[in-house]
Amino acid sequence: MIGAGFMGAAHSQGWRVAPRFFDLPLTPRMSVLVGRDAERTRSAADTWGWAESSIDWREVIARDDIDVVDIVTPGDSHAEIAIAALEAGKHVLCEKPLANTVAEARRMAEAAASARSTGVRSMVGFTYRRVPAATFARDLIADGRLGEIRQVRAEYLQDWLSDAEAPLTWRLQKERAGSGALGDIGAHAIDIAEFMTGRRLTRVAGVVETIVSERPVLAERSGLSGSAGAERAAVTVDDVALFLGRFDGGALASFEASRFRTGRKNALRVEISGALGSLAFDLESPNELQFYDATAPATEQGFRRILVTEPEHPYMSAWWPAGHMIGYEHGFSHQAKDFVEAVAASHDPRPSFADGLHVQQVLDAVTRSSDADGVWTGVEADPAPADVPADDRAFAAS
Amino acid sequence: MIGAGFMGAAHSQGWRVAPRFFDLPLTPRMSVLVGRDAERTRSAADTWGWAESSIDWREVIARDDIDVVDIVTPGDSHAEIAIAALEAGKHVLCEKPLANTVAEARRMAEAAASARSTGVRSMVGFTYRRVPAATFARDLIADGRLGEIRQVRAEYLQDWLSDAEAPLTWRLQKERAGSGALGDIGAHAIDIAEFMTGRRLTRVAGVVETIVSERPVLAERSGLSGSAGAERAAVTVDDVALFLGRFDGGALASFEASRFRTGRKNALRVEISGALGSLAFDLESPNELQFYDATAPATEQGFRRILVTEPEHPYMSAWWPAGHMIGYEHGFSHQAKDFVEAVAASHDPRPSFADGLHVQQVLDAVTRSSDADGVWTGVEADPAPADVPADDRAFAAS
Amino acid sequence: MIGAGFMGAAHSQGWRVAPRFFDLPLTPRMSVLVGRDAERTRSAADTWGWAESSIDWREVIARDDIDVVDIVTPGDSHAEIAIAALEAGKHVLCEKPLANTVAEARRMAEAAASARSTGVRSMVGFTYRRVPAATFARDLIADGRLGEIRQVRAEYLQDWLSDAEAPLTWRLQKERAGSGALGDIGAHAIDIAEFMTGRRLTRVAGVVETIVSERPVLAERSGLSGSAGAERAAVTVDDVALFLGRFDGGALASFEASRFRTGRKNALRVEISGALGSLAFDLESPNELQFYDATAPATEQGFRRILVTEPEHPYMSAWWPAGHMIGYEHGFSHQAKDFVEAVAASHDPRPSFADGLHVQQVLDAVTRSSDADGVWTGVEADPAPADVPADDRAFAAS
Amino acid sequence: MIGAGFMGAAHSQGWRVAPRFFDLPLTPRMSVLVGRDAERTRSAADTWGWAESSIDWREVIARDDIDVVDIVTPGDSHAEIAIAALEAGKHVLCEKPLANTVAEARRMAEAAASARSTGVRSMVGFTYRRVPAATFARDLIADGRLGEIRQVRAEYLQDWLSDAEAPLTWRLQKERAGSGALGDIGAHAIDIAEFMTGRRLTRVAGVVETIVSERPVLAERSGLSGSAGAERAAVTVDDVALFLGRFDGGALASFEASRFRTGRKNALRVEISGALGSLAFDLESPNELQFYDATAPATEQGFRRILVTEPEHPYMSAWWPAGHMIGYEHGFSHQAKDFVEAVAASHDPRPSFADGLHVQQVLDAVTRSSDADGVWTGVEADPAPADVPADDRAFAAS
Repeated sequence: MIGAGFMGAAHSQGWRVAPRFFDLPLTPRMSVLVGRDAERTRSAADTWGWAESSIDWREVIARDDIDVVDIVTPGDSHAEIAIAALEAGKHVLCEKPLANTVAEARRMAEAAASARSTGVRSMVGFTYRRVPAATFARDLIADGRLGEIRQVRAEYLQDWLSDAEAPLTWRLQKERAGSGALGDIGAHAIDIAEFMTGRRLTRVAGVVETIVSERPVLAERSGLSGSAGAERAAVTVDDVALFLGRFDGGALASFEASRFRTGRKNALRVEISGALGSLAFDLESPNELQFYDATAPATEQGFRRILVTEPEHPYMSAWWPAGHMIGYEHGFSHQAKDFVEAVAASHDPRPSFADGLHVQQVLDAVTRSSDADGVWTGVEADPAPADVPADDRAFAAS
Repeated sequence: MIGAGFMGAAHSQGWRVAPRFFDLPLTPRMSVLVGRDAERTRSAADTWGWAESSIDWREVIARDDIDVVDIVTPGDSHAEIAIAALEAGKHVLCEKPLANTVAEARRMAEAAASARSTGVRSMVGFTYRRVPAATFARDLIADGRLGEIRQVRAEYLQDWLSDAEAPLTWRLQKERAGSGALGDIGAHAIDIAEFMTGRRLTRVAGVVETIVSERPVLAERSGLSGSAGAERAAVTVDDVALFLGRFDGGALASFEASRFRTGRKNALRVEISGALGSLAFDLESPNELQFYDATAPATEQGFRRILVTEPEHPYMSAWWPAGHMIGYEHGFSHQAKDFVEAVAASHDPRPSFADGLHVQQVLDAVTRSSDADGVWTGVEADPAPADVPADDRAFAAS
Repeated sequence: MIGAGFMGAAHSQGWRVAPRFFDLPLTPRMSVLVGRDAERTRSAADTWGWAESSIDWREVIARDDIDVVDIVTPGDSHAEIAIAALEAGKHVLCEKPLANTVAEARRMAEAAASARSTGVRSMVGFTYRRVPAATFARDLIADGRLGEIRQVRAEYLQDWLSDAEAPLTWRLQKERAGSGALGDIGAHAIDIAEFMTGRRLTRVAGVVETIVSERPVLAERSGLSGSAGAERAAVTVDDVALFLGRFDGGALASFEASRFRTGRKNALRVEISGALGSLAFDLESPNELQFYDATAPATEQGFRRILVTEPEHPYMSAWWPAGHMIGYEHGFSHQAKDFVEAVAASHDPRPSFADGLHVQQVLDAVTRSSDADGVWTGVEADPAPADVPADDRAFAAS
Repeated sequence: MIGAGFMGAAHSQGWRVAPRFFDLPLTPRMSVLVGRDAERTRSAADTWGWAESSIDWREVIARDDIDVVDIVTPGDSHAEIAIAALEAGKHVLCEKPLANTVAEARRMAEAAASARSTGVRSMVGFTYRRVPAATFARDLIADGRLGEIRQVRAEYLQDWLSDAEAPLTWRLQKERAGSGALGDIGAHAIDIAEFMTGRRLTRVAGVVETIVSERPVLAERSGLSGSAGAERAAVTVDDVALFLGRFDGGALASFEASRFRTGRKNALRVEISGALGSLAFDLESPNELQFYDATAPATEQGFRRILVTEPEHPYMSAWWPAGHMIGYEHGFSHQAKDFVEAVAASHDPRPSFADGLHVQQVLDAVTRSSDADGVWTGVEADPAPADVPADDRAFAAS
């Protein structure tokens, strides 16, 4: 695993726990953790259970005993590492966003397509697809339970920037993070809406901006928190993005990514309305799916709160009895399971690097629309790689 | 209408509004309001829209131009007035609780039975049966959608006594109110549970007590509010009651009536669990019914929040389009409508005085159980009057 | 009252009930109902309690014994009637939208300004401002409890067009209705967002469209329902509108009006996020306001579900004890009360015709943006009439 | 760890994960898993990550390299194993219920008291205390935020026996399980209510019964599921229990344990009402606590939904950023952490074996009350062991 920050803890938990609950065809070994600071990386490796640590990712991906490279660094280094790893014949799981630019993402998708021809697998880490309620939402839609999809509302709301004195972290600096609310959390909203509906955005129109443009500089870089000094510097990424979208097939959508929605901590909320029914999901109640079946008798229609914890629900037979909840990191176990199974089965997992490129193209179109006074802007469309199946359902729902 | 307190406003609104929305076979005229103080009663009659006022209820019920007597006085005067009115050949609607004692209630039920033989109708005002969501709950159960009923939880929770300095009102004085939380709000919980399930309680076991036993005396009697003086006096009714119950048919139940459940303002909540499904109702969300259908596929089961505002729902075609809510006093319009229709159709409306007697018998059994250290105690059972149909569904759901 | 359709029932209930619960300085008399069909109008007048009926509105507004004209016709006739009534010296309450075009609305606002100088009052019927939870939301924001407002989400979601076979009614015909989802329900979302925040939209960017473009024609015009024949005709208004907005002061907003959000019956939902707190309101739970106070200790922050039923809440002391809910039509009683009080106090009530004009200008800007491929478009700004106070708080909250 | 069933998976996850997220003073090693069937136990040990497996628990607790014994067998074997382990000087964590009888539980508590004098620690696994929202509820009450506690409602509702054809498992057989709904889930309701309030039940009155008295026998014993044959046998434990309770200090309580509450999967729900506020918790929304602060201004009171995911909340700084949820098994990590810390600090952890004995005494009193026709029955009170502190707050909330 390359990267020793917050996402490293989550991915480590995924690799650690997946083989304890799922009957995997291959057993992942947590070999080497790669970071930038030798001491810190060694400490993190000990804490998280990696056998070795290193500060030289190139050396690690050259090793014969490494089969899989999991990339959890900030987005600016994804392309270089992922392409090198793919070229070295390693299966690659890369945290989202796939890259900080469309150009990088395209090179990665191309590298993934090349590698695929030699049996090398790649996947981008839009983990929320693997929240069972989200996967089950996709299943209901794929089964036609909502009929024709007419409207989608997808929003990812947080509030940790509501306080104008919240400090400047790397996530607020363009050179590291690439994008702000749009790229970091808006990307999730886009991906999950496309995943659930099985549709892709073709046009968007919106606005991206920075509400609080200067923040206190941390005395030393220390991740998401830290004591702020008197010095201030510019926030160089957006902190809010609002946009409308059009899906192939015609459905209209409305998106929002914001870190100023006071009281919303991690509210990835999706509402999908079809001719025959509706769904609503909120990541702050991750074990629930609201489903409205408009084919029921008029007197009995209502949003039903499905606890997505039955053994028949996606992924859930591996865990606890019905009604016992799972949490944030379980998605990473599901991701690890699906990735391992894909590798074992010589199957290309989803979301693919091409999917990640597409999300990047949507983000780019939103930014271009914002720059063009909000005019509707086409999403650049790369032909989907031929060998990735349109539906990864078999893999996600087992 | 006899009585000019809080319930008078609600009943007046019922009589005033019902003919504006429902196509009634007879048109109620709001003739005389009877109170105890001439000036206040005249003022209330003006405010509420009664043509005349009086302080002599005996004179009023003797009038030939009066067909219906609506009794909204405190419980200690119900028996005398209702029996006199029935004997005078007036149709009687009597606010709950039917009476302050079982003996009074029995005399009233007997008077109602006698009057019935001469075409005189009577009804007791358990209005919450006529909240459309409650009526619809009854319909679902009557239709077998819950299967065999196994368990019932019914509670009526308020908090206006949480403050130990809340003043002593007539509702806290046994000679006026007869009972406290048990008789005033517990009676509703009992009635609605029996109404929804179509079953009667046969045995109970519980405790009735007074948590705050002394309260400030109001400088002058002024209803529910007022400035409290330094003087204190004993609260002579219960302020909390908890009891278990057994329905005919065997289902177990648990009841609670409390005015100390801080934050619950008017929470008449009922959960009914059957072999095939469940229902949950909360009067604080009166336009909703939660319904769980256990015959749905396992992955799709969930409590569905039905907005009981469709024209197909009980009473609702008279009001607004779907999704437009109704409030507390609408139940009084439904009551007025059902009562008028019953009179016009020479039909005996429910809940009957016999129903009101039965609730009183349950309350009495709870009190006896409490006095007997909580032992299970049989509910005295009067034979149901032969000419009241077991099911008033035709009248309530139109 | 001019107009005998659905809104007539609601306004009639407002006039009927307001004086029974509020202590009004003047007593409204329900004199004449004016419709188009003599027989139907007479019948409606009887049902709703108007003393007379007429089919000649010009004659009625000429009568000396008429002081107030309440206009509840479709929007295409608002301007003509309202201007004539104002010129005749009648106080005018006009249902929203103020008019079908900006030009008409401006003429009405000008007429209102002229009339004002002679002591004639006018108001537009954005009744949802007078849902106590909405008024209380405004109060909290005006008191600074949310701090600087950063973001607003306002949506009005219905689903009665989800069924592609729902028939063509006058609300779907441009010549009668003027606008569809945008003008009918989007107008409410705009008004309530502006009311709560005390800010006006200055720019918008969006899309307005018709999802189902042909529908069955009703055999005869019969309002909202009816049996559909085989014939089909074009829907000539929009049925969905999505737009972004910018408030004066800078806050970003996102709006949606839709009749395809399956399962949402009457969901006027607003979320307002500020630096110090947030609010959320949903008309499907009209007695509740969700309030998040970000100044509380971190461990104790949470959206609190305030039951807006305390006597200290706006309008509520007139109704029932805490925890007893009110419904849709109560807003019309509040509107009647506020209008009567304004007339009696020689005060100009809000929302004024100028407010109604402004909403129309926002709608117009949204349409122009939609026509211009979604580009940000300025809202035409008329100078606010000088004699309408910026804040009607004193009148709404009593 | 002794026991290889369902709870073994949960405890294993606790031991495995705790040291990865918490900075523990001692590092647990997962040494030996003990089961009854050699092959199955070996397989479970591999899956769960135990270094060795064994079928001889006596041999294992005799080993010098074993410091801690974790007992997750059915209740009938707890006493024998736990006492032997304590006498062998091993720290013991014993799954709840502590034992199947009061007599066994008392012997265990005595053994724990003896062992304590030689520095040996013991704890019973009422894990739900360690759900952060539950711990935080305790903290709020301990801080006086609810004022004097007046009422408690605690219920643990499931529905897996709603289906009368659900098969007979060991949990329905008295000789293995000791008790049914009362002992298995009612015990949790009792413990969490006492934990949150800091009070102990002194008297109870209730009913314990078996709603479905015969069920299909499984072809072979296979845990919680299996294909049912034609044969039927008696259910020998209760499947529902309802009781009232009195806490020391006087608060009244109402309890329910049921496996027939259709639609409730794992609903451990607690509502606690005090003079100054209220709390509500539901294990089906485990990351939330509803808190009502009655000291707020009347207009601003409301149940607030606190997401108990802030770093300042108990246990949560170890996990993810605010708004990222945790699941069922996290409680086992918290339990492992607290136990390890107690051992390292020579501190006696809670809940102690004495606490477990007390719960058993409450269960016993409920059963005796049920046998005595529901009469109020005193809870046998053992003097609390002197050296267990009354409050384990320091340990649970860090």
